[in-house]
Amino acid sequence: MKIRPLEIILSLMLLANFPLYSQDAGKTIAEKLGYPADAKLLIVHADDAGVSHSENIATIRGMEEGIVNSASIMVPCPWFPEIADYARENSDTKDFGLHLTVTSEWKDYKWGPTSSSNEVKSLVNKHGYFYPLTDSVQKIAEVTDIEKEIDNQIIKALDFGIDVTHLDAHMLAVMSTPEFMEAYIKKGREYRLPVLLSDRLPAFQVLEEKMEFTDRDIITDHLYMANPEIYASQGMETFYENILNGLEPGLSVILIHLAYDNEEMKAVTKDHPDFGSKWRQDDLDFFTSEKARSLVEANNIILVTWRQLRDKIVRAE
Amino acid sequence: MKIRPLEIILSLMLLANFPLYSQDAGKTIAEKLGYPADAKLLIVHADDAGVSHSENIATIRGMEEGIVNSASIMVPCPWFPEIADYARENSDTKDFGLHLTVTSEWKDYKWGPTSSSNEVKSLVNKHGYFYPLTDSVQKIAEVTDIEKEIDNQIIKALDFGIDVTHLDAHMLAVMSTPEFMEAYIKKGREYRLPVLLSDRLPAFQVLEEKMEFTDRDIITDHLYMANPEIYASQGMETFYENILNGLEPGLSVILIHLAYDNEEMKAVTKDHPDFGSKWRQDDLDFFTSEKARSLVEANNIILVTWRQLRDKIVRAE
Repeated sequence: MKIRPLEIILSLMLLANFPLYSQDAGKTIAEKLGYPADAKLLIVHADDAGVSHSENIATIRGMEEGIVNSASIMVPCPWFPEIADYARENSDTKDFGLHLTVTSEWKDYKWGPTSSSNEVKSLVNKHGYFYPLTDSVQKIAEVTDIEKEIDNQIIKALDFGIDVTHLDAHMLAVMSTPEFMEAYIKKGREYRLPVLLSDRLPAFQVLEEKMEFTDRDIITDHLYMANPEIYASQGMETFYENILNGLEPGLSVILIHLAYDNEEMKAVTKDHPDFGSKWRQDDLDFFTSEKARSLVEANNIILVTWRQLRDKIVRAE
Repeated sequence: MKIRPLEIILSLMLLANFPLYSQDAGKTIAEKLGYPADAKLLIVHADDAGVSHSENIATIRGMEEGIVNSASIMVPCPWFPEIADYARENSDTKDFGLHLTVTSEWKDYKWGPTSSSNEVKSLVNKHGYFYPLTDSVQKIAEVTDIEKEIDNQIIKALDFGIDVTHLDAHMLAVMSTPEFMEAYIKKGREYRLPVLLSDRLPAFQVLEEKMEFTDRDIITDHLYMANPEIYASQGMETFYENILNGLEPGLSVILIHLAYDNEEMKAVTKDHPDFGSKWRQDDLDFFTSEKARSLVEANNIILVTWRQLRDKIVRAE
């Protein structure tokens, strides 16, 4: 076989632009971002942007007045255009990814897929809405439909001008089986976006044995989210205070949900205090408080964004 | 050809159940409903139920506390399930039809078709939303898509258990050309539902020459709706007061839009004071006022519902 010089040059260019491994192989995430190896990195991440107007204005307030430094957007939701506009207009300072959504969980307020509904039949009920719960998605959804819907949500977000920094998953539905999670990871790689992953997730534990991960895949070291037991027993303030005071080195992510406890959000979350409007107001109150800001400082926590992870690791040259 | 007795009986049964003409041919609508020929009949009709939570709770209040006696629901909108539940649970006392919708007119808050979007391609933009304005529908929509979408909205509403009393048209879009209006009228006949019609509508003037209308088609005598000029020059109270004081015999319909001037509705109608949240609050204030009730009484106005028209005329035996 004759080696043609042009081919060599093209291959080298390709490698330079899309290297398979970064030059930082072996370093910790903190080092790759330019911090000491044992730095305590934290993303304070608001889920569910786009779900309602209340969620949008609270998320924006959390980012502008509080220590919330990243959020992810639900593309199929009715209020998507409002938060998409904000994300586009503030991409120089604000960090927005996509909260990939294949469930529609509230009683009186519904949405369906971004894809044509008959192109993702296994994701929708007879009324064209997503199923309410991840359970149904796990049981009924076909991986090809999951993949198609993820793709259409990314395409639509990019088309709206959002500088998408990362992907994660509403109600963990698109990570709820190893098969779905594999599709989700592959979509991240295709668009060169970090995806939220944690070895605490059962599907990830299966995939770890099966898929090859490189140092361009971001695996969070510590992932925190309030749950109904925590909310009932200790309340948000104590929970978050303990996390911040006890934060360990590595990359930590706290997943929160911001909204006002107002008429709209009370109606959206009707009959469902867990992750309800009061819950979200409590999240907002804590993460816009002086206390939260002081705890971050006092504990030498470095707030980092998904954009940093995307640009300095996933897309590093 | 042999005539079989069973066939004759079946045909007679069919005729008895679905007569082509009612026995009241020639009478006025008022007489068909059992009122004097020159009675002043009025439907106070709230459009846009389902568009938002604010619209839903205001519409319900208008019907429970005010003189609003009929409303129509936007099936493709996010808050449809909330108003559908109310309509189903209160079908013995409340009158709900469908506000057939093929536009999505607000800036930050969007919806798409009830049909799978790739089955009604001429109704949706590249993001899968309806076009904002009736103008675009007139220019771009194909009548087969209009017909399919109307059908799917009716099927979904019936499936949610709504006792649909009538059909009308959001932003008049499905009546905006003679062709679309013909499809709309035919759907009404197919489901044996009255559809809102008026000889003030340009498309109807064309169709009058072309289609055959029977005494089962309800043509309103007087159709009223506020517009930006009226709102700016005289305000809602004066406008409605004048209508009620000057109401003439025949079937009149006042189309109104009820919502609270609250945070959600301000955001829905952002940058659009016409038909905006304040406008809708003014409608609500007037039609829940003691004054409105007194004016109806003082002017001997008889409030009638689309259900009466449906059951005593369209479905009369």
